[in-house]
Amino acid sequence: MQSITTEACSPLISLTWEGDHLALLDQRLLPEEVVYLRLHTPEEVAEAIRHLAVRGAPAIGIAAAYGVYLGMKDFQARADAAEDDAKRQLLAVLRAHAILLAGSRPTAVNLFWALDRMKRRAEAFAVDERITVQAMKQSLLAEAVRIHKEDEDTNRRIGEHALTLFTDGMGVLTHCNAGALATAKYGTALAPFYLAHERGMHLRIFADETRPVLQGARLTALELQRAGLDVTLICDNMAGAIMAKGWVQAVIVGTDRVAANGDVANKIGTYSVAVLARAHEIPFYVACPLSTIDLSTPTGADIPIEERIAEEITEGFGKRTAPRGVKVYNPAFDITPHNYVSGIITEKGIVKGNYKEGLRKLFQSRLS
Amino acid sequence: MQSITTEACSPLISLTWEGDHLALLDQRLLPEEVVYLRLHTPEEVAEAIRHLAVRGAPAIGIAAAYGVYLGMKDFQARADAAEDDAKRQLLAVLRAHAILLAGSRPTAVNLFWALDRMKRRAEAFAVDERITVQAMKQSLLAEAVRIHKEDEDTNRRIGEHALTLFTDGMGVLTHCNAGALATAKYGTALAPFYLAHERGMHLRIFADETRPVLQGARLTALELQRAGLDVTLICDNMAGAIMAKGWVQAVIVGTDRVAANGDVANKIGTYSVAVLARAHEIPFYVACPLSTIDLSTPTGADIPIEERIAEEITEGFGKRTAPRGVKVYNPAFDITPHNYVSGIITEKGIVKGNYKEGLRKLFQSRLS
Repeated sequence: MQSITTEACSPLISLTWEGDHLALLDQRLLPEEVVYLRLHTPEEVAEAIRHLAVRGAPAIGIAAAYGVYLGMKDFQARADAAEDDAKRQLLAVLRAHAILLAGSRPTAVNLFWALDRMKRRAEAFAVDERITVQAMKQSLLAEAVRIHKEDEDTNRRIGEHALTLFTDGMGVLTHCNAGALATAKYGTALAPFYLAHERGMHLRIFADETRPVLQGARLTALELQRAGLDVTLICDNMAGAIMAKGWVQAVIVGTDRVAANGDVANKIGTYSVAVLARAHEIPFYVACPLSTIDLSTPTGADIPIEERIAEEITEGFGKRTAPRGVKVYNPAFDITPHNYVSGIITEKGIVKGNYKEGLRKLFQSRLS
Repeated sequence: MQSITTEACSPLISLTWEGDHLALLDQRLLPEEVVYLRLHTPEEVAEAIRHLAVRGAPAIGIAAAYGVYLGMKDFQARADAAEDDAKRQLLAVLRAHAILLAGSRPTAVNLFWALDRMKRRAEAFAVDERITVQAMKQSLLAEAVRIHKEDEDTNRRIGEHALTLFTDGMGVLTHCNAGALATAKYGTALAPFYLAHERGMHLRIFADETRPVLQGARLTALELQRAGLDVTLICDNMAGAIMAKGWVQAVIVGTDRVAANGDVANKIGTYSVAVLARAHEIPFYVACPLSTIDLSTPTGADIPIEERIAEEITEGFGKRTAPRGVKVYNPAFDITPHNYVSGIITEKGIVKGNYKEGLRKLFQSRLS
């Protein structure tokens, strides 16, 4: 594994396929250093995932798909093997690497989804007599590229829909990081900001720093700044004050899970922002791909809220900032009830009003 | 200047008079170390104020008053001086030290107020023929003790009034630090918590960490924990989530200035908490001495909001947590409009409803 450092002012891309290896931004070093890891083997990809060099469900899934291909790229069957034997050997290699990669972050749903998709594709090729070992390799690389490209397309579509809600000169507040760094490109909540910028439309973006882990300060502020967008960093507790000043005309955030009734689970602090937005008559939007909407979860009350260790709050950045032994409450997420949500923006369009009905229809329209 | 460290679990007192010197808690070392500075001269007191070992307007005023006395404690007039000459010399010494102390924190109103009070007292003694040099010294020490004691009494009265608003078992949220550490004892917003604890009444207290300077984490959580109270630390952006859970039955905060119409300037984030409290139908109280109410400021819009340096946000945890060069908005205070305030609690009682009328009457009742 080699690494390279980019110049100070290029936009940040979470990962790129470089023909024979994966270049992956090492997010552990942000915001201070921008270093791309050069990954040539599935073992290196698994290590990068395990040690949090890459984060964000879509980005992890894409990295894993390329990891699968890296494991078969240089595969050579025994010289005396028939073509279908060689393909079976290749499939066995793929399965072994998929197990390795799946173990790198056992809670990441997108990781399993991407690995399954690669496996199913390989299994189909393995029994297709028209496909050679070489063609199977190329097709699996193409599948990884497709997973990568689909995520970018999904986000661009989310951005297009979201952009219809914004006008030139608006102030827009976001919380946490639902950006390019978590995805192939554009991000979800940040996608309309990038599209606006591409089109010369000016948005004044406010990024909540997002305690305790500071994804807003470390990631959102960074990726928007590097891409040349107009971003201002604030502490979470300043959101109300800037709304009262009239600086914010819309809020847009990502989400970890949307329930069937439109309740939204997202990074802790999202609910407070939604309540503040309502009090200032500012619309509050949620952006996400359809894959984040879980119709099998009836309401937000059915989403378990992870509680994390006290040290994230009391000594999050190498220095103790609270007394030892003090009680701490540190939920990772909160639930924003659907009645605070002005719209849920997906790649298939924007759902407003009756979410239960609207979200269900969204899935039907995809399946039809 | 000597210093001593106390054992781990005694309540924190910002300063105590030790008969011949001032013991002053070095707040720069909190929450990690509890060290009391032993100050024997006005120069040492001025240095402690200048370098922020002591903070909080009342505590600074009290320290300065003792500083004045420390400068005259060992005063010896020339052997041949008549008593009234000696008293004039003592007055000159006092004035020189008052100038020294006044320069230690030029923006601290309580500092000047305390120094003026000591000077006026000394000037009255200087022209009173019945008073000896020795009696003058003793009376000025008594004046410093009185300033100290009056602050404690004021806070205890605020606490008594505030306590009528709380009942056993309540959850109460506070923001920033309006506590014992900023005052002689009890604090303002935290006073009812200490009184409740003295009486065996249980309150479940939530302390916002209060970004960017973390007074809630470093000071409020610490002083309540050390005094044996039930305090839970949260990040500012968790306030809405714990209100939604039904854990909070009241909010109480301090204030830097109350305008004549009841608008309240306080640490940034206070306004967001007030809006969240309103949305959850939770009363939002402000505690302060009469000296913080400024009838010459008509409304909150007339209170200038200090903007502070970006580094408080971007590298406040001892490590850079935001990209270099990113735009930052860092207001020190915000304004909570009076219609969000359920009551203003002073040493003279609680004002509710028509603040313009109620606050004016409060001052009349003191003057009558």
